[in-house]
Amino acid sequence: MEVNTLSKPILQGKTLYLHEPFALECGYTLPEIKIYYHTKGNYHPQKSKVIWVCHALTANSDVLDWWKGLFGESMLYDSDEYYVVCANILGSCYGSTGPLHNNPVTGTPYYHDFPQVTIRDQVHFLDKLRVHLGISAIHTCLGGSLGGQYALEWAIMHPELIKNLIIMCTSARTSPWAIALNETQRMAIKADISWTQKHENAGLDGLKTARAIALLSYRSYETYQHTQHDAMDETKNYKAITYQQHQGNKFIKRFNAYSYWVLTHMLDSHNVGRQRGSVENALKSIKSHTLVIGINTDMLFPTVEQKAIATHIEGAKLVLLDSLYGHDGFLIESEKITDIISDFYR
Amino acid sequence: MEVNTLSKPILQGKTLYLHEPFALECGYTLPEIKIYYHTKGNYHPQKSKVIWVCHALTANSDVLDWWKGLFGESMLYDSDEYYVVCANILGSCYGSTGPLHNNPVTGTPYYHDFPQVTIRDQVHFLDKLRVHLGISAIHTCLGGSLGGQYALEWAIMHPELIKNLIIMCTSARTSPWAIALNETQRMAIKADISWTQKHENAGLDGLKTARAIALLSYRSYETYQHTQHDAMDETKNYKAITYQQHQGNKFIKRFNAYSYWVLTHMLDSHNVGRQRGSVENALKSIKSHTLVIGINTDMLFPTVEQKAIATHIEGAKLVLLDSLYGHDGFLIESEKITDIISDFYR
Repeated sequence: MEVNTLSKPILQGKTLYLHEPFALECGYTLPEIKIYYHTKGNYHPQKSKVIWVCHALTANSDVLDWWKGLFGESMLYDSDEYYVVCANILGSCYGSTGPLHNNPVTGTPYYHDFPQVTIRDQVHFLDKLRVHLGISAIHTCLGGSLGGQYALEWAIMHPELIKNLIIMCTSARTSPWAIALNETQRMAIKADISWTQKHENAGLDGLKTARAIALLSYRSYETYQHTQHDAMDETKNYKAITYQQHQGNKFIKRFNAYSYWVLTHMLDSHNVGRQRGSVENALKSIKSHTLVIGINTDMLFPTVEQKAIATHIEGAKLVLLDSLYGHDGFLIESEKITDIISDFYR
Repeated sequence: MEVNTLSKPILQGKTLYLHEPFALECGYTLPEIKIYYHTKGNYHPQKSKVIWVCHALTANSDVLDWWKGLFGESMLYDSDEYYVVCANILGSCYGSTGPLHNNPVTGTPYYHDFPQVTIRDQVHFLDKLRVHLGISAIHTCLGGSLGGQYALEWAIMHPELIKNLIIMCTSARTSPWAIALNETQRMAIKADISWTQKHENAGLDGLKTARAIALLSYRSYETYQHTQHDAMDETKNYKAITYQQHQGNKFIKRFNAYSYWVLTHMLDSHNVGRQRGSVENALKSIKSHTLVIGINTDMLFPTVEQKAIATHIEGAKLVLLDSLYGHDGFLIESEKITDIISDFYR
C-alpha cells in the first residue's frame, strides 16, 4: 500500500499585479488591478485539462472552501489530469481589486467611489489572468448563479476558448424579479445611517438584513419547513428568527457593504443580449459543448431561465433536478451534480 | 326610469370605546380599548345576512378602499340583504387601539411598549364588537392572508357563530418560511437607527425596506416579468428598482413601524394547534361550511397550506386558481373569486 499524501496537489493562492490601466464598460479606467486566484495542480500546456471555476456573488477563489463536493479529496475534479483555476472577481473582497483597496490616484480607499463593473468587465479581468497563465484552451469552464453568468459571457466573448461550458442555476439576463431582490437589499444598506460614512464597517447593519433577504431567495419554503420547524406550543424564539439573525451576523464578519453594493449592481446589468440584438442571438454564437443544470425549487433563477438558455445554445444539454435546497442546491447536491457532469463528459 | 342614488347604502366608519380592561394572552392588560369599524347597510336581526370581513396585515376597515371587486357597486356583496362589517384590528393604525395611541396609565403613547398581541386576542377584540352590534349569527366570515388566519381562529373559538367561512391565501399555522420573511423585515427596521427613538416617524427608513421585502413575497417572478420588464439595451434605471423604492416610499406615508412590528410578531405566533394538541384537532372542531381558496403562484402561503386546511375541516371545499399576481391575487382576481364564492353558496 502506497501512502503519500504530500504528493497530493493542494490549492495555492497567488496574486497577479497588473500595473496598467484597466478600462471598464462604464467609461472609468482603473489605474491598475490585482487578481487574486487559486490554482490546483501543475500546468502542462500539452496535457493538463484546465478547469476554470467561476465563483458566485460572495464566494472566493478557494474552491475547497465552498465547493468541496466537486473539488475535495476523491471528488470529481480531484485528479492530476486537471489544472484547476479560480480567480476572485473584480470588486469583491477576497484579494482582487475592490472598494476597500487604495485608489492609487487619491491614495485613499475607493469606498463608495469604486466604479460600476459589469459581467463583461469580469470576463476581460479573468482573461488577463488566463493570458498570464499561458492558457490557450479551457477544457471546462463551470459556475453557478453569478458564476454561471460570467462563464456564459466568456463563452460568448471568446467562442473558441471554452471546450465544455457547465452552468448551473443561472440566467442569460437578470430578471426584473432578481433586480427587485437586489434593490431591496440595497435599500436595507441605505437605511443604515452608517452607510454614508467612509470606513470599512459602513453599512454593516444594513448588510445583515441584505444577507437575510438574499438567504430567503437562496432557499425555499421547503428548506425552512425542513430545518427551522418549531415545537407545537412554542410562542417565541422561533428557530427561523434566530436563523435569519445568525446568518446576517455571520456574513458581516466576512464581507463588506461596498463590495455587496457594486456586485449586486453588476448582477442587475447582466444581459447577454445587450448590444447584440437579442438574448437568442448571443446564445446562438456559443460554440462550447454546453451543459445547463437547473433546480426545480430555485426561486431566484427559476428553471424557465435555464430552459431558455439550453433552447438557444446549439446542442446544449439541459438537466433539471429536484432538491430541498432551492438555489443553493447547486452547492449542496454535489452527488447528483457529479453524476450529471460525468454523464455529460461521456 | 327611477334614479335614486341616495338610497344606496354607503360604508360608515364608527368607533366603539370600551372603558374596561382588555386582557391579552401575553399577560398584559390594556386598560381600555377602542375598535374602529365600518358597516354597510342597516342591520335587521331577523333578516340581515351579516358578512364579516377580516382585513389583512396593513389594510383598514373600509372594504371599499381595498376590496372593491367584491364589495363595490354591483359586485357580489353589494345588496341590501347584506349587513357588512369590518373592524380595524388591535395594534394597527387605522382607528383601533394601537402603538401611537396614548397609554392612559402613563399619558404618553405606547410606541415600543405596546404589548404583543396574538391572533386569539384579535378574535376576543372582534367579538366585543360583535356583541355590541347585537349580532348572534354571522352569515359569512371572510378574509385573505392574515384576515384568513383570524377568521379561522374565530371559527374554532366560536364554533356555532359562523355559518359560512371563506378564507383565502392563508394558513392554519405560520410557516418557518413566513416567520423568516417577517424577521427579515424587522431586521430592516432595527437597522434604522431612528427606530430606537420615541416618535411616530421612528424606523420609517427601515420600514420602506420591510415593505419592499414584503412586496416580493406578495407577488411572484412572473408578476415582475410581466410588469417591470426593461428595454433590451437598458443599462440603468431598471423599472424593478424604481418600483421597489416607490412602493417603500408610498407605504411609509400610510403606516408606522410600531404597528408593523407588533402585527408581524402576531403573524409569527399564529398556530391554531397551539394548546389544542395539533393543527388537525383544531381544524376538526370547525362547524362552519368552509371554502378555502388558494392561488398557485402564492409564495408566501403556498397552496400546500390551503390543501392542509381543507383536508381537516369537515366538508370543506378547496379551490386553487391560477393568477399572475401571486399572493396578492386574492385582492386582484375578484371576478374569478366572485364565481367561486357564488358557486359555493349554491
